Amino acid sequence: MEDPLTRKLHLNAFLMGVGHHEAAWRHPRTEPARLTDVRHYQELARIAERGRLDSVFLADGVALNGDVRHNALDRLEPLTLLSALAAVTDHIGLIATVSTTYNEPFHVARKFASLDHISGGRAGWNIVTSAGEAEARNFGVVRPSHADRYARAGEFLEVVRKLWDSWEDDAIVGDRAGGHYADTGKIHAIEHLGEHFSVSGPLNTSRTPQGHPLLVQAGSSEDGKEFAARHAEAVFTAQQTLADGQEFYADLKRRLAAHGRRHEDVLILPGISPIIGSTEREALRLEKELEDLIIPAYGLAQLSRMTGLDLTEDDLDAPLPDVPAETDGAQSRRKLVVDLARREHLTVRELIGRLAGGRGHRVVAGTPAQIADQMQEWFMNGAADGFNVMPPILPGGLSDFVDYVVPELQVRGLFRYEYEGRTLRGNYGLPRPGSRYAALAVAP
Amino acid sequence: MEDPLTRKLHLNAFLMGVGHHEAAWRHPRTEPARLTDVRHYQELARIAERGRLDSVFLADGVALNGDVRHNALDRLEPLTLLSALAAVTDHIGLIATVSTTYNEPFHVARKFASLDHISGGRAGWNIVTSAGEAEARNFGVVRPSHADRYARAGEFLEVVRKLWDSWEDDAIVGDRAGGHYADTGKIHAIEHLGEHFSVSGPLNTSRTPQGHPLLVQAGSSEDGKEFAARHAEAVFTAQQTLADGQEFYADLKRRLAAHGRRHEDVLILPGISPIIGSTEREALRLEKELEDLIIPAYGLAQLSRMTGLDLTEDDLDAPLPDVPAETDGAQSRRKLVVDLARREHLTVRELIGRLAGGRGHRVVAGTPAQIADQMQEWFMNGAADGFNVMPPILPGGLSDFVDYVVPELQVRGLFRYEYEGRTLRGNYGLPRPGSRYAALAVAP
Repeated sequence: MEDPLTRKLHLNAFLMGVGHHEAAWRHPRTEPARLTDVRHYQELARIAERGRLDSVFLADGVALNGDVRHNALDRLEPLTLLSALAAVTDHIGLIATVSTTYNEPFHVARKFASLDHISGGRAGWNIVTSAGEAEARNFGVVRPSHADRYARAGEFLEVVRKLWDSWEDDAIVGDRAGGHYADTGKIHAIEHLGEHFSVSGPLNTSRTPQGHPLLVQAGSSEDGKEFAARHAEAVFTAQQTLADGQEFYADLKRRLAAHGRRHEDVLILPGISPIIGSTEREALRLEKELEDLIIPAYGLAQLSRMTGLDLTEDDLDAPLPDVPAETDGAQSRRKLVVDLARREHLTVRELIGRLAGGRGHRVVAGTPAQIADQMQEWFMNGAADGFNVMPPILPGGLSDFVDYVVPELQVRGLFRYEYEGRTLRGNYGLPRPGSRYAALAVAP
Repeated sequence: MEDPLTRKLHLNAFLMGVGHHEAAWRHPRTEPARLTDVRHYQELARIAERGRLDSVFLADGVALNGDVRHNALDRLEPLTLLSALAAVTDHIGLIATVSTTYNEPFHVARKFASLDHISGGRAGWNIVTSAGEAEARNFGVVRPSHADRYARAGEFLEVVRKLWDSWEDDAIVGDRAGGHYADTGKIHAIEHLGEHFSVSGPLNTSRTPQGHPLLVQAGSSEDGKEFAARHAEAVFTAQQTLADGQEFYADLKRRLAAHGRRHEDVLILPGISPIIGSTEREALRLEKELEDLIIPAYGLAQLSRMTGLDLTEDDLDAPLPDVPAETDGAQSRRKLVVDLARREHLTVRELIGRLAGGRGHRVVAGTPAQIADQMQEWFMNGAADGFNVMPPILPGGLSDFVDYVVPELQVRGLFRYEYEGRTLRGNYGLPRPGSRYAALAVAP
């Protein structure tokens, strides 16, 4: 385990359109016309790099989800977008969400290998499954069950890792005089034959700077936590209270041993949406400004989506109604939402306001020092190895975080002044995996 | 039809590793270690843009094909790579090869829409089908027949176009004060239900600068030509002689009317590998240098792949043996190779030398003026609307082309001095398509 005196926070900037708050696009400090303008995202990546953050991250889905009448929901595709960010940055890690549900492992392995080459070792993959009805209808299939999605995801990842290993580090000889380009003894057919996939390999892209792009995961269901404990190297999670954060952290770290992994093999990064003011009053005013821009019908529709319940006809000023037993799909997020409403005795309207900032992630409004206090508390008390930072408005919320909260974390000795590593793995303090085929080759 | 006096060539730079010649990686003017270095491709794109070329283009396949012992065959994935090139260029078009055989139309529509946004309207899609055994084995399927691949490709493209049309140009309202982001009456479910695909839509990426990224095609089989006549806006083709070029050109342009298309709706761009010297002698010396670097075993294997025949045991210094009737898959390329060998009475070794420069595309060695003469002859005599330029070595062969051949074409009035358009379509002189759903909406 790391020395607690030198242990440092890891910070990821979660980039979402013009901000994570549902009403961000209506706020005077954003420009929603920049939603499909690459320069907007390039600016965000440069700001994050200026702040020495570990990485930026893009969520994704393969359907138009939510009510686009009332929110800026069109999106660029993450892998193409991150390549364009790689071209204008040098250090920041680049994490893309790609689903295992409607994809093929060969394509996904290759695109991440390509991004890892292009970025010089800064690629990360947030592994998700596609749960939605609308997504299933874009691929002509019946929506798969939770268990089926995770079973496919596990085998998918196994194939992808084999493909990333299919070229050993020293497979390319490059002997021009002798006409010997590559040592085919170090390029391996993977001949995977499983329940979901049959893939021969090898990849047609050589071994990448990181060996394997960083593996990130964000599901908090039972299957999700098991998947993370087996495979993930960084975990994004939504936790509202220190106690919940500690419980999740301890639970996930405890699961590692069963898979032969150590405490430090996985970084746990709870989400935090920092609403920053130079005074607490200013921060609360910004929070209120954003809350006042929420469209109630949109908020009800979002709350229904997050919980999997139809609340669109509910009374805004009454408490959240009793909810039926959990169903497949949105379990962990529903529990979080219901717990929040009950704990704080919120009306539906108040709940919508609380969720609008981070879709279930924790919102902290305050001065830079107050926000740093919160982060420090979680970091020092077994609830976080770092944070998934979700600014309510972009780019302003990110530049405020970098300019005011990061220095506060730095002077407290909690965050780096300069990048330590040359790759995303290097900055996250995670090892570079070797090729499984190389290991076989050196066996007696 | 364009005024013949103002009609201009269109030029695409086909970027292939460190050069199109099979032995390029062994030549002292290349650096094969740059094969997976994004800066190599960024340099190439900037050179092409300096020469005012219309576009750069990347081929692709989804298997390691060919003998990597003797050639630099590892590749970056085109869409991720082109995004990184978009970030460092302003005008050059960016054409990526993506197969319809093992992909899903929703993913492909979205990635090209994303690239079109990121590049400000410079994306093009070279539509291919995947014919190889090795490719089929990476997706766990039996290799589909030629006809099945093209049937799937046709429906695939139909779905992709519908998805690109699913957001009308003016679907985004962006009314912040009123809380009205998009007009859902202008965002359309496509509800495609066909033999191969069932896709509801809409896309979750808004309408792009070009409406539809440019559609490019390169198959020269009967199915390929019909596909091009129905759908393509630019066609890459391998033609060895002026007569063959004229026949292909006339044939393809003749087929357009049956699909309600005009002569000028498709640009035909034969491949040309220019081996450039300041004197003819210098050009021939470079050609000889490259030829001397060919590894015979590799050449035989490549010839076998191109023709679909096993020639690996053949006598290098004998004529090409009689070949059996054509089979599914490599027909058009086999015919070209056999015709070339017969026409010029080549031994197998000589044939390998002739093919090594452009894998069946025409190789022209000479001074800039001689190369311009050849291009002019084809352009003025009904064999080409422009060229797919395949430099034998990269970057040197491309910078020589831009610095010496392009000015020669410019002074002859055959090529632009400055970009005319703001998008790839604009520079190719092709119209921007409207959304099919908008057309429906204005019907009485």
